[in-house]
Amino acid sequence: MSELRTVTLGMLGCGTVGQNVLHLLQRREAIFADLGVRLEVAGVLVRDLTRPRDVPEGISLTNDPRFLNRCGLVIEVMGGVDRPLELLLPILQSDRPVVTANKALLAERWDVLREHALDGRLYYESAVMAGTPIIGPMSTVLRASGFVGLQAVLNGTCSYILSQMEQGKPYQAALSEAQALGYAEDPPTLDVGGFDTAHKLAVLARFCADGHFPYSAVSVTGIEQVTLEDIAQARAEGQKIRLVATLERQGDTWKARVAPTRLPLDHPICTVGDGRNAMVYEGEECGTLVFAGGGAGGMVTASAIVGDIMDSVLGFPGHVPLH
Amino acid sequence: MSELRTVTLGMLGCGTVGQNVLHLLQRREAIFADLGVRLEVAGVLVRDLTRPRDVPEGISLTNDPRFLNRCGLVIEVMGGVDRPLELLLPILQSDRPVVTANKALLAERWDVLREHALDGRLYYESAVMAGTPIIGPMSTVLRASGFVGLQAVLNGTCSYILSQMEQGKPYQAALSEAQALGYAEDPPTLDVGGFDTAHKLAVLARFCADGHFPYSAVSVTGIEQVTLEDIAQARAEGQKIRLVATLERQGDTWKARVAPTRLPLDHPICTVGDGRNAMVYEGEECGTLVFAGGGAGGMVTASAIVGDIMDSVLGFPGHVPLH
Amino acid sequence: MSELRTVTLGMLGCGTVGQNVLHLLQRREAIFADLGVRLEVAGVLVRDLTRPRDVPEGISLTNDPRFLNRCGLVIEVMGGVDRPLELLLPILQSDRPVVTANKALLAERWDVLREHALDGRLYYESAVMAGTPIIGPMSTVLRASGFVGLQAVLNGTCSYILSQMEQGKPYQAALSEAQALGYAEDPPTLDVGGFDTAHKLAVLARFCADGHFPYSAVSVTGIEQVTLEDIAQARAEGQKIRLVATLERQGDTWKARVAPTRLPLDHPICTVGDGRNAMVYEGEECGTLVFAGGGAGGMVTASAIVGDIMDSVLGFPGHVPLH
Amino acid sequence: MSELRTVTLGMLGCGTVGQNVLHLLQRREAIFADLGVRLEVAGVLVRDLTRPRDVPEGISLTNDPRFLNRCGLVIEVMGGVDRPLELLLPILQSDRPVVTANKALLAERWDVLREHALDGRLYYESAVMAGTPIIGPMSTVLRASGFVGLQAVLNGTCSYILSQMEQGKPYQAALSEAQALGYAEDPPTLDVGGFDTAHKLAVLARFCADGHFPYSAVSVTGIEQVTLEDIAQARAEGQKIRLVATLERQGDTWKARVAPTRLPLDHPICTVGDGRNAMVYEGEECGTLVFAGGGAGGMVTASAIVGDIMDSVLGFPGHVPLH
Repeated sequence: MSELRTVTLGMLGCGTVGQNVLHLLQRREAIFADLGVRLEVAGVLVRDLTRPRDVPEGISLTNDPRFLNRCGLVIEVMGGVDRPLELLLPILQSDRPVVTANKALLAERWDVLREHALDGRLYYESAVMAGTPIIGPMSTVLRASGFVGLQAVLNGTCSYILSQMEQGKPYQAALSEAQALGYAEDPPTLDVGGFDTAHKLAVLARFCADGHFPYSAVSVTGIEQVTLEDIAQARAEGQKIRLVATLERQGDTWKARVAPTRLPLDHPICTVGDGRNAMVYEGEECGTLVFAGGGAGGMVTASAIVGDIMDSVLGFPGHVPLH
Repeated sequence: MSELRTVTLGMLGCGTVGQNVLHLLQRREAIFADLGVRLEVAGVLVRDLTRPRDVPEGISLTNDPRFLNRCGLVIEVMGGVDRPLELLLPILQSDRPVVTANKALLAERWDVLREHALDGRLYYESAVMAGTPIIGPMSTVLRASGFVGLQAVLNGTCSYILSQMEQGKPYQAALSEAQALGYAEDPPTLDVGGFDTAHKLAVLARFCADGHFPYSAVSVTGIEQVTLEDIAQARAEGQKIRLVATLERQGDTWKARVAPTRLPLDHPICTVGDGRNAMVYEGEECGTLVFAGGGAGGMVTASAIVGDIMDSVLGFPGHVPLH
Repeated sequence: MSELRTVTLGMLGCGTVGQNVLHLLQRREAIFADLGVRLEVAGVLVRDLTRPRDVPEGISLTNDPRFLNRCGLVIEVMGGVDRPLELLLPILQSDRPVVTANKALLAERWDVLREHALDGRLYYESAVMAGTPIIGPMSTVLRASGFVGLQAVLNGTCSYILSQMEQGKPYQAALSEAQALGYAEDPPTLDVGGFDTAHKLAVLARFCADGHFPYSAVSVTGIEQVTLEDIAQARAEGQKIRLVATLERQGDTWKARVAPTRLPLDHPICTVGDGRNAMVYEGEECGTLVFAGGGAGGMVTASAIVGDIMDSVLGFPGHVPLH
Repeated sequence: MSELRTVTLGMLGCGTVGQNVLHLLQRREAIFADLGVRLEVAGVLVRDLTRPRDVPEGISLTNDPRFLNRCGLVIEVMGGVDRPLELLLPILQSDRPVVTANKALLAERWDVLREHALDGRLYYESAVMAGTPIIGPMSTVLRASGFVGLQAVLNGTCSYILSQMEQGKPYQAALSEAQALGYAEDPPTLDVGGFDTAHKLAVLARFCADGHFPYSAVSVTGIEQVTLEDIAQARAEGQKIRLVATLERQGDTWKARVAPTRLPLDHPICTVGDGRNAMVYEGEECGTLVFAGGGAGGMVTASAIVGDIMDSVLGFPGHVPLH
């Protein structure tokens, strides 16, 4: 093997997804070598150094962010909004690529991030539908078609709770179970309140509706008020209730909405299976497309993050929204 | 608007897909301008100049290929194998990008084309599943996951015939109807013999199994022998028959097979709808992904071709197979 | 050695410079291989196939320009203006690099060529001062300094004739001798009339005065009227006469002039030696710079052409004038 | 003016050269804007915050290097070897460009810097012959010629002292005068001992002799032992003494030498003028080239540094030595 170029990585956060990223990077070492690259993890920023984590040998965990100065690419999986922004902005300002899975950050700080996304420095395939490639196609090939609209189920916790309610479990019991299984956070507002889905919808809207689409323009209703009666009534009419993100034209503008929605049982979002994220994308010329994939599990998200890292080291620009 | 860079295009062939490409390029003029580019079609190579065609005003049809010397990008939608290869090779040798929808060419002349694909000069999103983005994700982000296997329905004519047979029409009648509707060529061997599907499977295999995967390694059985009895029997067991392309590991090697195959009715390939191409992709880390979209119609294919042109003028490399 | 990328070259013209280019490319094969490239000469366009030429084995001479369609880079050393333009325009329109030594073409067809030069497709280090690197520095690092002015001796034939006159030979005898030695063309107007020098000055002016600088704005006086008396008189005052190209500010505009000019004997243009092209370049911040080198001989020019080919295969843009 | 891309700069050191760089960047704002770029100086690292400096308004001087994390390009004009290396390494490891004028650093830490130079991240036109473009041509177009040898005068202080001695001043008096005028440092060893010239010769040797050329392979004799008698004797034979750097082939290897050397008065190094750096470069095909320019003054050096910054923001790689 001839000389490999070294790319020095840094990571912010080391929860489930982060730990999986570190393991997957190691597992794909041979592919990166085949692309001419040797990855070196310069450091992983964590808040609590005492918390036990499953990371490959030799990884340096630290709470001192100064190692970022020598990182040629930074992966952000710490969550939150203002703290990751503060850490990532210098990286972006110095023209270094950032790979992030953080839809809250992308949705809520777009005013600051947009210019960096336009310059191709931001990679975020994993932020919507985890391992299912949708951000990539939307930012490239799908632009050839006029955009008509989309419908998507983007939050696994809500789908899980609603499908448990279909088995007869009341909302609170289903939610508690989801929390016990580690699917839902405590408090669960981000998921069940629809805000996580709304974050993702805002990110999507910037590729197909308006590059400036503000998060605040998404109307959001969560699933907290869905009752067993609602579900029974839907079923009586051959339908299911899911938390659906919808983006559609309304006169001269675009309407983005997250709300519990009845879907016929043979709707592709229903038929692809309950555990899956799914999107039905309508384009003027490409017609109706269906994308679906598993949304849960840190490794699924990690696979998209590592895919973004590959794109970056290959010289592909990041995900560029509409101008 | 400041000065736009002119990109000079040439096109080989001008059937349904080609005519749609020309119209769609015109329709997307504003997007190309937004990307800083003005497209100019230098010429369209056709065999028969007298055949009536629906092309935008000002397009120059010709049977003299010398205009290719001034084309900065060439689109191939003429079909066939040796003639397009002869015309495209000089373009590729001179480091100019080629966008093609021609899976027969890609499958059967890979020995010659592979080096150009590795150098990022070949764009062929439209060659498999038409407007559904699968080649792009396979050549980039999906490489982060270990490949486990795939199953796909890739030929609309076969699906149409088989679904007509499910309504009780015998094979010959269904085939004739497909031909009358313009879905199937005459002779229909390429479609019903499974060869079109096999071409596409060979193309896919080069992204996930082996960059040298030869077309001859695909085992092919068509649908000509499928009887109404077979279909009835499948139905009795809750199954459908479709012409399925399968790629899976077999010991140390990869097995590629095209054959009429029974699928349970709730298999994603069945549930996404009869008129659609569909693929179930299994990755070690990304899990099970489903992609589906309309395969028929020249405009669907044209949308992927125009998407490839966008990628090329944006400076993205073409679809690079495994090394 | 791992796989080399093949770059297919074409050449227009095969006089002394062209033949030297072909030999030098062969001699530098190892350096190109070190840069990852294997050069392949697809063809050399000549008018007269019967004329004997010294070219490496295997080079294909032809009078049919169709081989240009498969060339990834075209070298122009045929001279003339309209014929090379006609052959090169398709190459430039299709976004392929062109390396040319032809200052007449650059000077007189700048209205057509400028957009291609701005897009970085035109390489022409050899067009001015042959093997002395001046176009490269002017198009890059020297732009950091404000331009004040330049003086240069750019035509070896004129310098030769004038230095012969300093030995006492009358103009006509010196000219005949230059022609006999092959330094001057017959008719010699391009050289002794100052037009070759004016072409070169126009090219230079586009880097430091105005990117649109027209050839017609150069005022030109040749050396035909210089007498032995002029020379004796100059000498009596400690001066030499040379055909000097001058570019200097005049009020709000730039004045470009080619004329026989008296220079003190200790002027750098005189002291660097009679056989040499020489330039004194004045920048606001970089101060006074002197560049000098041999201008005669096909191999000197060939060395700059091969340097441009190296730049191009390394991915450097060509020589970009002022916007 | 449409949206400009912001490039964030940092600078290490703020002596004469650094202050001139800051002023020149401001003066060239319009050219950078024309190239689509707005420069923003994030910070300037200095040791002594109390020292008065002439810098443009708004420049932030600091002794805390943390601002480097947000710099997309770093300029090094602090001098020294280990401290600048420590500060620059993280920048280079994170794939950010570095512009440096520091020949001592380049000469003495090449083992660490070479891989970054090969990757095109290091720009150092100003390190040799200040504002005279020689590193650029050597790293590109001159590679087309086989290298034969070079002779150069690269240190202005030594030339000044020797030319004062030609007027009859003894060495010590000439040196004291140079120090009083601010031309020579105290202690003056780096200049008069020949080490500064040797640093520069080592840098040059990596472009034309051997990409690994070690500083320790340069044989160095300073001018401290040159006497008025030596100078008188040289003059008697029509010669001058200068501190000359020589690189020439010796059998199978390259010999690099810095030593006081007699040159005939009509040697180009002598005739271009006493205040100038000068080089005579001999190539197999390009012949003998002469480069000369003023070496003194912070603004001359600053002009090459700003030229390197232009190259970098235009996407040109830095100065790449032989492999």
